[in-house]
Amino acid sequence: MADCQQLKAQFATPSGVEEAAHRMADFAMHHKREGRRVVLITSGGTKVPLESRTVRFLDNFSSGRRGATSAEHFLDAGYAVIFLHRHRSLFPFSHRYASLNWLDALQLVPSEGPRQEEELPSGSCLRVEVVPKVVPGLVPLLQHYQLVKEAGTLLPVEFNTLSEYLHLLMAAAQALSPLGNSAMFYLAAAVSDFYIPASEMPEHKIQSSSGPLQITMKMVPKMLSPLVRDWAPQAFIISFKLETDPTIVIDRARQALGTYRHQVVVANILDTLRTHVILITQNSKTDLYLSEEEASCGKEIEEKIVNDLNARHTAFINQN
Amino acid sequence: MADCQQLKAQFATPSGVEEAAHRMADFAMHHKREGRRVVLITSGGTKVPLESRTVRFLDNFSSGRRGATSAEHFLDAGYAVIFLHRHRSLFPFSHRYASLNWLDALQLVPSEGPRQEEELPSGSCLRVEVVPKVVPGLVPLLQHYQLVKEAGTLLPVEFNTLSEYLHLLMAAAQALSPLGNSAMFYLAAAVSDFYIPASEMPEHKIQSSSGPLQITMKMVPKMLSPLVRDWAPQAFIISFKLETDPTIVIDRARQALGTYRHQVVVANILDTLRTHVILITQNSKTDLYLSEEEASCGKEIEEKIVNDLNARHTAFINQN
Repeated sequence: MADCQQLKAQFATPSGVEEAAHRMADFAMHHKREGRRVVLITSGGTKVPLESRTVRFLDNFSSGRRGATSAEHFLDAGYAVIFLHRHRSLFPFSHRYASLNWLDALQLVPSEGPRQEEELPSGSCLRVEVVPKVVPGLVPLLQHYQLVKEAGTLLPVEFNTLSEYLHLLMAAAQALSPLGNSAMFYLAAAVSDFYIPASEMPEHKIQSSSGPLQITMKMVPKMLSPLVRDWAPQAFIISFKLETDPTIVIDRARQALGTYRHQVVVANILDTLRTHVILITQNSKTDLYLSEEEASCGKEIEEKIVNDLNARHTAFINQN
Repeated sequence: MADCQQLKAQFATPSGVEEAAHRMADFAMHHKREGRRVVLITSGGTKVPLESRTVRFLDNFSSGRRGATSAEHFLDAGYAVIFLHRHRSLFPFSHRYASLNWLDALQLVPSEGPRQEEELPSGSCLRVEVVPKVVPGLVPLLQHYQLVKEAGTLLPVEFNTLSEYLHLLMAAAQALSPLGNSAMFYLAAAVSDFYIPASEMPEHKIQSSSGPLQITMKMVPKMLSPLVRDWAPQAFIISFKLETDPTIVIDRARQALGTYRHQVVVANILDTLRTHVILITQNSKTDLYLSEEEASCGKEIEEKIVNDLNARHTAFINQN
């Protein structure tokens, strides 16, 4: 666990990590008893501060859409899901209305029944209703969401900075270790490759009057290495490789697989994120496509990714 | 207009700017005819790409809370508001429920009346209602929001990158120029001081395998200078100065006022954003505080800032 100690030393433990670690451990044990597989999904980009009293930071392009949509399909496939996501990134179910201002979807309606009045402050006689045509598809989606909440199969955990992400990933690996090979890691978050160590960071806001800005950033230690080797050696681990240049993505994915020796790399290109991914293993390469026709029916490529990985996970469990 | 041309040359016009420019011009002319003052509020941080097919970017700390809250108080004071804000930053009225997952606030209720059934898809007989206790204060807030929508006094315009912000600010200045001194600029957005010119930007994602990252960023040309001098010489202009170091903030604010010769700088410190600001003009310095007691009653410092600026704006109009 040398890497782990080294990482912990470089990034002081942020507040809230311990409490989240307990919640993840309880969640994992509960679903182990219920006989469910558990997947940890990481989602969204990490924030890398440039100043210790942070005004400026480096960020990664990631709305969290891949992670949020995948979570829904993992839940449908029977997994319990720990959703480790960037604060305010897209969230399962509700992300479908991410561009909606909910106040535009609400109307005030005079209240009639006594049931409503009981819940309202005295004197008030209005209730608030959703205007159905402003939020198409809300009824079935809400039913779906409420079923998931009742089943208790979704545990959201939030991070903001790279440091919070690193600590929470370690805690999640520890929480999932009792599950052995029935745990899956689906590492869809866009984690920064670079950071500024706390010791080299200016305390105060960098002054623009000092002229052009020179930033030197260190490389973030690769978490995948200790994760595969030490923290979750029995688990089924999927990493993601996003590139903008299609000519290098496959090589970079194979390289990652060779270096870290985990199970699958999902390779994708920024321009075709939603319609094409390539699943790469030690001895296979599988292209998944979403056709225009499928897209127009509301089908999503994440459903295909999750179905494929679910089948591979089953084979992985049976082999071991 | 030399600066303007220079800026336009450095940052190619993003799509959507022209359409927004028309909307702003129409909005300004309409409210001029109605005899209303118009304030342009800028809000949220700007995104500065590090690659032309952007995966990584530099960002500024700014939730947009100051701008969103101020917009409400300017509306209350009778202003028409152009709300030029970062995509997904906090929005007037709805920001009060920014941390709420709206799906947690909704319940399905059997529909009774025929009015509801007409709007629902056939076969469905459920309506969606807000659970009042999950969203305290919603009824009066929604009434307030709906009155503003009916009055047509709020125009939202979105930006994402620094380049979009610069072009939209220019367009807004042009839209507001017919209003002369009854236009106000309330520049609360956290605009990046640094950027990488398109010509020096790598096309593709920077590879982490190439070692530590060195970034050199140029200084963003100061927009306040051409805004005050050329684009809106008659308008009442307020800029903001945020620092983390309380010992330098007043000097920095006075410097800005000396350089740009606009009307007011609102100075604030990161740690006390919500409870203390200092309004600085050529010949005055006014501290505004929010006491703990006021905060506990739900009062906001933005109400005090807006009331103060409204009075100064009236005096400014009467003087000129």
